[in-house]
Amino acid sequence: MAGIILCDIGNSFLHFYYAGRIWRENPNSITLKKPHIPIYYISVNPNFEKKLLDSHKTCINLEKFIQLQSVYKGLGVDRKAACKAISNGVIVDAGSAITIDIMEDNQHIGGYILPGISSYQHLYQCISPALHVPLDLSVNLYAPPQNTKEAISFGILKSIILMLKHTTQTKKMYFTGGDGKFFAKYFENSIFDNTLIFKGMQQALKENNII
Amino acid sequence: MAGIILCDIGNSFLHFYYAGRIWRENPNSITLKKPHIPIYYISVNPNFEKKLLDSHKTCINLEKFIQLQSVYKGLGVDRKAACKAISNGVIVDAGSAITIDIMEDNQHIGGYILPGISSYQHLYQCISPALHVPLDLSVNLYAPPQNTKEAISFGILKSIILMLKHTTQTKKMYFTGGDGKFFAKYFENSIFDNTLIFKGMQQALKENNII
Repeated sequence: MAGIILCDIGNSFLHFYYAGRIWRENPNSITLKKPHIPIYYISVNPNFEKKLLDSHKTCINLEKFIQLQSVYKGLGVDRKAACKAISNGVIVDAGSAITIDIMEDNQHIGGYILPGISSYQHLYQCISPALHVPLDLSVNLYAPPQNTKEAISFGILKSIILMLKHTTQTKKMYFTGGDGKFFAKYFENSIFDNTLIFKGMQQALKENNII
Repeated sequence: MAGIILCDIGNSFLHFYYAGRIWRENPNSITLKKPHIPIYYISVNPNFEKKLLDSHKTCINLEKFIQLQSVYKGLGVDRKAACKAISNGVIVDAGSAITIDIMEDNQHIGGYILPGISSYQHLYQCISPALHVPLDLSVNLYAPPQNTKEAISFGILKSIILMLKHTTQTKKMYFTGGDGKFFAKYFENSIFDNTLIFKGMQQALKENNII
């Protein structure tokens, strides 16, 4: 699939995949791609999608080809794509939101959504200026916090990690997204794979004989 | 203590206590109290505090009298007051933020902060318009969610409840604040007491022989 570019348009960045390489771009400064290479994309953000379409002629929306067995209503196309790449396990995409999805025998059996780390941090600032403190991502999760910085860091990280541990039980975990690597280290039976969504998109391209 | 009014100024409302009765007022429409009754108050919000002071002459800030044994730096005066009321247990004040504090033998041994339910809800809307949905506070916390409304409600409620369960172990829980009653019902060994902060304030008044 060296002849095409894949693009995953999220709520903060555009993520690209080309010839085995991945990178992200700011929606306000998308670099011009070579015009003869088609861009197959999925998007959860109509504004950023428009920015890509305005600057590039050959963009094909893959959304309708991303099929996933699920009774979940309103599953984002990025979650569908990531889930398609995994037959059995828990898929965690940790970006501005953290989505957690469970796959069993190629079936999506449900999932939930938590705020991402940076979103949490922003929220505390909004609740009170007194909670506007930097995070300590290495805060001790096994001792009661002793100041505001620890109290907030502990609240964010421990609540996310407890939820993930509660969901995973004995299942294998697949982490992706900007904070995926960070969370993966808290789990033994886990893999960090930043190409998960692109793998799902490639699978959809194959299934539908598009390339 | 019928001759005084107690007031707890939070980040959303002003909470009053007078002659065994409690009520809350909007900071932009504080009702005028009788001028001969002094108001003893604590505050975590300087703007709302100013609104009270501008409209009432006899207001006494109790902050310096609220003493609590703790090594925690920067503990909000409202948390200190609530903790003073309890010798042993976990104190949960569930408002725009949820503060969780642990008391052992009249010593505060630490605590942490989570966003409140309504703050979480606001946050999801900010992450993506697709996540702007009403909450389902009776969502099933024991089955994988099957739509966005369930996915967000499950994420918020289960992460908070798991954190609380993890903190409480065998300790007794004391809930207060706007969502305190809601969370208390998830815990067997729990009490909802909306006067916790006022009880701590009264104790400080007595300890310091103020009234």
